[in-house]
Amino acid sequence: MTDLAGRIENGVHILALRVFYEDTDFSGYVYHANFLKFCERGRSDFLRVLGVDQAQMFGSDRKLAIVVRKMICDFLKPARFDDILRVETAPQLVAGARFDLTQQVLRGRDVLFAATVTAALIDGSGRPTRIPTEMMEKFRL
Amino acid sequence: MTDLAGRIENGVHILALRVFYEDTDFSGYVYHANFLKFCERGRSDFLRVLGVDQAQMFGSDRKLAIVVRKMICDFLKPARFDDILRVETAPQLVAGARFDLTQQVLRGRDVLFAATVTAALIDGSGRPTRIPTEMMEKFRL
Amino acid sequence: MTDLAGRIENGVHILALRVFYEDTDFSGYVYHANFLKFCERGRSDFLRVLGVDQAQMFGSDRKLAIVVRKMICDFLKPARFDDILRVETAPQLVAGARFDLTQQVLRGRDVLFAATVTAALIDGSGRPTRIPTEMMEKFRL
Amino acid sequence: MTDLAGRIENGVHILALRVFYEDTDFSGYVYHANFLKFCERGRSDFLRVLGVDQAQMFGSDRKLAIVVRKMICDFLKPARFDDILRVETAPQLVAGARFDLTQQVLRGRDVLFAATVTAALIDGSGRPTRIPTEMMEKFRL
Repeated sequence: MTDLAGRIENGVHILALRVFYEDTDFSGYVYHANFLKFCERGRSDFLRVLGVDQAQMFGSDRKLAIVVRKMICDFLKPARFDDILRVETAPQLVAGARFDLTQQVLRGRDVLFAATVTAALIDGSGRPTRIPTEMMEKFRL
Repeated sequence: MTDLAGRIENGVHILALRVFYEDTDFSGYVYHANFLKFCERGRSDFLRVLGVDQAQMFGSDRKLAIVVRKMICDFLKPARFDDILRVETAPQLVAGARFDLTQQVLRGRDVLFAATVTAALIDGSGRPTRIPTEMMEKFRL
Repeated sequence: MTDLAGRIENGVHILALRVFYEDTDFSGYVYHANFLKFCERGRSDFLRVLGVDQAQMFGSDRKLAIVVRKMICDFLKPARFDDILRVETAPQLVAGARFDLTQQVLRGRDVLFAATVTAALIDGSGRPTRIPTEMMEKFRL
Repeated sequence: MTDLAGRIENGVHILALRVFYEDTDFSGYVYHANFLKFCERGRSDFLRVLGVDQAQMFGSDRKLAIVVRKMICDFLKPARFDDILRVETAPQLVAGARFDLTQQVLRGRDVLFAATVTAALIDGSGRPTRIPTEMMEKFRL
């Protein structure tokens, strides 16, 4: 079943997905906010492939969670039912409690959606928390 | 802002909602599984109106949660963008850890969706838990 | 990218999927209505593997669509973030405008969700439409 | 049932909504992408209150649709189950095929989410289309 997992190539994490009924709206295309869901699947799988276990982090005493602080989103072209899409995730900067990524959703060579994402590690009380050295080193692809 | 709340009339809880883009799919109609979301909004608001605080129950030591065990769903007519719908929730039976409800989603007099729902109270380990007398009495409308 | 596709084995269509953040709710588990989304992914992929093109059918003059009429749903065990699940879809009966399926969502050998589904082929005006012989023969696995 | 509608006050459209189970994820808070759904409810209701009928526009020969081109999103504070939120939508610029808005999601006086949105009117072939004078005048609040 490992065929569901993404892979890292040349410093970029790649996850494939298919568009289903649930992703579309009555315009006939993918509902705009669902591109953010696709990106979150990309980020979660990227972390998983790096060996970062979000469920375990959140289940720990400190209730650590990675949250999105800012997203700049460009909706470039529409996606359709049954399209096979590719989410590309590239880490840009990891420092302190913060890490920045760029993400794209593509169909073949067409970039349908592009985003720059600022995420942060927070503890159970919502306070930013220094990213552990061990985790930080994983981001050096 | 109390205009968001549903009300109980003749033993039936009624919650109004509007259909948005997010609820539809490329067929032009409301995506079938979203009728279950509408019903859950009805059940949650019904409990809230009765004074049952699900967030507090779940935040307590026993981590009590009300979960759906079974739903028999009839998808009768389609709903469209911008429709004003009405979710009607009527308790049928409360006994032990279990309570049964019937629910309908209507547009005017048209029943678009009908369901019978079996729910249960469980604790944090997933075990069925006797519904407290205090809560049980609230269901006697 | 064919690794996203399901496969048919002994008359049963099997589609694997991973649980993401978007699928869960604050109880910590998969939100109940999302099991219906998983089943719809299974049905859509099953049709696709059989060579039934839903987008093309809907884009045709008659605007043919396959819609769910009835679902009997048993929510048996919870699913969690990062779980790998398997949707199994088995056709039971195809006659007239109607086809019946049974579906299960499993994690390993555990059945988490089971449903019997009655679907129908309708035209753009919502009228039930006889399933074409060609399509009907595809369901004889 | 007009209590579901938002209202315009001092050039700002205000829509109230309640957070349900479906909006949360296993972190216990509202899933980040759902703030975009809340904003879309605000925009759609804003248009509806102004007398712009998106379903009719899309059903017309030209298949006119309003689509999001760009969103700059700041996720400032978390929202929780059962929160009553307020979506505030303020038009900034309407010119040619384009209109810009600022949107906020608040709980009481706390701004939980803020976005600047660039939207465009497109026709059925995806081409930007000059916003009709009649519609443009509606945006002068």
